[in-house]
Amino acid sequence: MTTTAPTATESVARELVELCKAGRNMDAISKLYSPDIVSIEPLDFEGMPATMTGIDAIRKKNEWWFENYETNSHQVDGPFVNGDQFAVKYLFDTTNKKTGERFQMTEIAVYMVKEGKIVQERFFNQDRQG
Amino acid sequence: MTTTAPTATESVARELVELCKAGRNMDAISKLYSPDIVSIEPLDFEGMPATMTGIDAIRKKNEWWFENYETNSHQVDGPFVNGDQFAVKYLFDTTNKKTGERFQMTEIAVYMVKEGKIVQERFFNQDRQG
Repeated sequence: MTTTAPTATESVARELVELCKAGRNMDAISKLYSPDIVSIEPLDFEGMPATMTGIDAIRKKNEWWFENYETNSHQVDGPFVNGDQFAVKYLFDTTNKKTGERFQMTEIAVYMVKEGKIVQERFFNQDRQG
Repeated sequence: MTTTAPTATESVARELVELCKAGRNMDAISKLYSPDIVSIEPLDFEGMPATMTGIDAIRKKNEWWFENYETNSHQVDGPFVNGDQFAVKYLFDTTNKKTGERFQMTEIAVYMVKEGKIVQERFFNQDRQG
């Protein structure tokens, strides 16, 4: 629709979405995240604080997730862009490897981009009564 | 799922979603928006700047929209919550009253809540190549 070149935010947003669609989340972190990335979940979770800082901590959080949860299928909807921020909606169909419990999880993530790298990610969880 | 009382953010988020689902967007503004609301669109639009401040300006922007665009149908997906912020995904099937052009528009909005009122809304537009 548009003939203008993509902004830096749009380029990063499209690459993140392509990598996540392909299940290459760890590659997305290595390629697109700032060393000083700040990650903000809604709540503390499994001994991890809601807010974590630094690419090593974020890598560990993601490794923990993929070690403990089997992804049966996933959908990646976006990106949606505004200035130096973009949003993506995720739907995961997941099984807890320990308990065998299968569930669907929908969330929206909002990312901030600075100098071509993602410096903040904030996850919004579906309101249980929503 | 949860038995804890909703947070102030969750209460505002649920009410906004209920009003928007019912097509009562103007009531949502009157009831839930701070007088000092800041609204951030991705781009300037029809002579309106991307960033507008104050409930009167936001009311006028919304009135302009509903005067110029017929909503054939709409979906409101959410809310998704994190701390004092929440996100909503919208899908509008819309007709430009002047030109007759019909189109579908998907966007994500992120709202910030302070003292029980929405003080900022930021709209993320679907990337055309996304």
